[in-house]
Amino acid sequence: VDVTHDGPQGWTLGELADEVGGRLVGDPDVRIVRVATLDSAGPGDLTFLTNVRYRDRLDATRASAVLIAPGGESGSLPRIEHDRPYVALARILARMHPPDPLRPGVSADARVSVSAVVPADAEIGPFAVVEDGAEIGAGARIGAGCHVGRGARVGADTVLHPGVTLYARTVVGARCILHAGVVLGADGFGFANDGGVHVKIPQVGRVIVEDDVEIGANSTVDRGALEDTVVGAGSKIDDLVMVAHGVRLGRACLLVAQSGVAGSTTLGDHVTIAGQSGVAGHVRVGDRTVIAAKSAVFSDVEPGSFVAGSPAIDHRAWKRSAAALKRLPELRSEIARLRERIEALETELGHASPQED
Amino acid sequence: VDVTHDGPQGWTLGELADEVGGRLVGDPDVRIVRVATLDSAGPGDLTFLTNVRYRDRLDATRASAVLIAPGGESGSLPRIEHDRPYVALARILARMHPPDPLRPGVSADARVSVSAVVPADAEIGPFAVVEDGAEIGAGARIGAGCHVGRGARVGADTVLHPGVTLYARTVVGARCILHAGVVLGADGFGFANDGGVHVKIPQVGRVIVEDDVEIGANSTVDRGALEDTVVGAGSKIDDLVMVAHGVRLGRACLLVAQSGVAGSTTLGDHVTIAGQSGVAGHVRVGDRTVIAAKSAVFSDVEPGSFVAGSPAIDHRAWKRSAAALKRLPELRSEIARLRERIEALETELGHASPQED
Amino acid sequence: VDVTHDGPQGWTLGELADEVGGRLVGDPDVRIVRVATLDSAGPGDLTFLTNVRYRDRLDATRASAVLIAPGGESGSLPRIEHDRPYVALARILARMHPPDPLRPGVSADARVSVSAVVPADAEIGPFAVVEDGAEIGAGARIGAGCHVGRGARVGADTVLHPGVTLYARTVVGARCILHAGVVLGADGFGFANDGGVHVKIPQVGRVIVEDDVEIGANSTVDRGALEDTVVGAGSKIDDLVMVAHGVRLGRACLLVAQSGVAGSTTLGDHVTIAGQSGVAGHVRVGDRTVIAAKSAVFSDVEPGSFVAGSPAIDHRAWKRSAAALKRLPELRSEIARLRERIEALETELGHASPQED
Repeated sequence: VDVTHDGPQGWTLGELADEVGGRLVGDPDVRIVRVATLDSAGPGDLTFLTNVRYRDRLDATRASAVLIAPGGESGSLPRIEHDRPYVALARILARMHPPDPLRPGVSADARVSVSAVVPADAEIGPFAVVEDGAEIGAGARIGAGCHVGRGARVGADTVLHPGVTLYARTVVGARCILHAGVVLGADGFGFANDGGVHVKIPQVGRVIVEDDVEIGANSTVDRGALEDTVVGAGSKIDDLVMVAHGVRLGRACLLVAQSGVAGSTTLGDHVTIAGQSGVAGHVRVGDRTVIAAKSAVFSDVEPGSFVAGSPAIDHRAWKRSAAALKRLPELRSEIARLRERIEALETELGHASPQED
Repeated sequence: VDVTHDGPQGWTLGELADEVGGRLVGDPDVRIVRVATLDSAGPGDLTFLTNVRYRDRLDATRASAVLIAPGGESGSLPRIEHDRPYVALARILARMHPPDPLRPGVSADARVSVSAVVPADAEIGPFAVVEDGAEIGAGARIGAGCHVGRGARVGADTVLHPGVTLYARTVVGARCILHAGVVLGADGFGFANDGGVHVKIPQVGRVIVEDDVEIGANSTVDRGALEDTVVGAGSKIDDLVMVAHGVRLGRACLLVAQSGVAGSTTLGDHVTIAGQSGVAGHVRVGDRTVIAAKSAVFSDVEPGSFVAGSPAIDHRAWKRSAAALKRLPELRSEIARLRERIEALETELGHASPQED
Repeated sequence: VDVTHDGPQGWTLGELADEVGGRLVGDPDVRIVRVATLDSAGPGDLTFLTNVRYRDRLDATRASAVLIAPGGESGSLPRIEHDRPYVALARILARMHPPDPLRPGVSADARVSVSAVVPADAEIGPFAVVEDGAEIGAGARIGAGCHVGRGARVGADTVLHPGVTLYARTVVGARCILHAGVVLGADGFGFANDGGVHVKIPQVGRVIVEDDVEIGANSTVDRGALEDTVVGAGSKIDDLVMVAHGVRLGRACLLVAQSGVAGSTTLGDHVTIAGQSGVAGHVRVGDRTVIAAKSAVFSDVEPGSFVAGSPAIDHRAWKRSAAALKRLPELRSEIARLRERIEALETELGHASPQED
């Protein structure tokens, strides 16, 4: 069994240029078997330059060809020119590494309710459970050991990797990817304090994941208390991320690993939350905002902001404050020295020492 | 298949007032089909005012009735008055949304040891495993794909959602809710350094979860090294929380999402740890302490404290420091200006410039 | 069924001393049934003193014997002297608490591909799936509900607790322990921005976990984009840790709970990342570095460093800054007072008030 990730025969450079609509410069028959970084590439590899910072490494690469933006010098190396080389790279990799083919049908070891809807071309893996009234879309794959709760819906061509749990009534759109261990629709964290006893507030909203969303391993999105929790179309969520009840993520947001969004907060479109950052509850974060890593947002953020720190402030101000903080001990010494000099002046002018209280 | 969460017929306002022992004002026959927030409610909805901050939204609501504290003006809207409206809300929602009925019995697809104890009215879902000597309580539900380890015990009426793992000898009390992906009793993180090699210290304590505890999706509580890890009765733990070996949580604690407690730390009763915060190991946190979001507690905390920051300090002091930090760069400029003014004075008085080292 | 963790008969102190090659002082026939801490030990217990800080508790212990470094006074208590008592403790606990015996063979409820390699002495639990071309090592245990992807390899004597997912082509070495819910090989978080649309970059590298690695419950290690993600031999990873695509951990690293390492970062050997800390992407962290809890490393770190804070700086500098930050509000008052004194001096010398802008 071949477990390497290289195509055995490879592709011609011409084929790949056609695949991405790029401009071919050099020999179209160069044989490409793999994509590799500038440093690690060897003969048979296509490398890429998507960041001009690495331009000087291009001269030293041993790759057989390069994918590059137009106008970039690439010496004598055969090349594919593309105005968005990183996007072209994604497409070439997808060509080289097609997903495992679907194995349509319901595993004999799965348990599918008679009231569930499962089209013939969907795949239901072994030890998966599909509960009453659930609906699976065409071409969807429900991995081994997944649990699709009562009345949940999974859109067309969506992939659930092994061990995903969708609680009752969760809705997942088309072309989504849910990685192993994802849990959608568990109860939000809501309790009424009755004299020190935490009385559970039933969480009766749903989780709605729109189309083209990817959610990383072991991340969790809780169902809303009364209203739905919504993950907007095209948003991408990394591993171990927590989205709380009643949150609404806009379209094309990026939530990096171990970040979290607390209850009832609304994110606009194209918001990025970097790793290990969080947004407090009941906050509005405007479109295109970027929240730097390890930050915590406690209040509303204007569209287009770039914030950092805890509590998060403007990113440049945070950098200045962090730099100043580092020198804070010397600032204290400086102030002590200034005080001495003032005292010396005061003594000279015959002042009495000031009273300290 | 009806996947909405509305009762098809609904309830009368009188019925609901009786349910919670509230005082009915207005027509008892108003038909209620749902609970909704002030803003989103429409005809047939019961809304609620649990926070006076939202008082002015009450006039604009389209709800058919309101749940409110006594003395609150609610105009002409029929209402249920209750002195703890949020608790009443929890009860009304529980009435409207009863949990899925138990399906008593052991699934033909579950594997239950002959030495395990499973009462007739417990539910063991498909692909669940119950190991030797495990004991399941009356009315408990073991979800699909759960794993109840050797000698583990699950209390009466406790619910394990799909994919929960209880390692050997874990004890879970009555009326607990463990959400999907929870892992209780995995080995604590303990190693002896033998010349650079990390030698595993067998973790032989247990996890004890007392009654009425809820634990969120994909959270983990590790077994103790020698002594047990204990989660006190009535405590509530959110998603992706980590409780390390030998920790003891008191009663009715709240651990919000992505928070963590390091080894051998003891929390008193009614301690709240907000999201993404942590407590270091071997620390004691007093009763009723609140740890703000994104904070880290590194030393003992007095009962009744409210702390924030990393390292965590008194919350008001932290707010002042955070505000001061924000203005730190301008403080530096201010000091530079003061130095110049002192130098001017010194020059005027004929001082030599001081030596800087 | 006996669910206690005590050996019913116990061991003699002489036996245990021999087990660890320690020096026995006192009666070799003292009967030991358990290991316990100084405070909680009673008759029949072996206690231990691995930290001189607790020396005074030794006098009060009710233990029957003590494990201690040579030269430590232990009064009249029978003792085992060992130059690395903590290591000896680990071995004694391992003797007292052998792991559950392997149950060799493939469960009738597991699904193992005909093209997978499973030796006769490996254990494949119920509802586990072993995909095409996967290879399981001698003496390995694949827990209930695990998923071993296509072409994945599991080394000899490695244990997968229930519900572990290995994506296709993941490689796990010998003698590893993967706790429940671990996910290895999910796609790294890589997207090309195509006019606001996040185009998935296929992640075609692998996850390589070397020998003697332990990974805690619900932690995730993502597969590399092009190159492999590597966890070096002897490294230990706690619960809910995230290791991103293309990261390389050296040998014998320790990653404490809820820590994370972002893409393409390289850690040297013996690096420790304390709880809830993170390292940004494309960073190099030198050998033997210690990153304190709740910190964030944003740039390269020299070998042997001890850093803290966010952004992380030298640990002592951070402590000074944190102390200074706490007193920052009073520093502001101090500066205001100094300014007044300067103004008084200036007035006295007939200066005009300076213009503030």
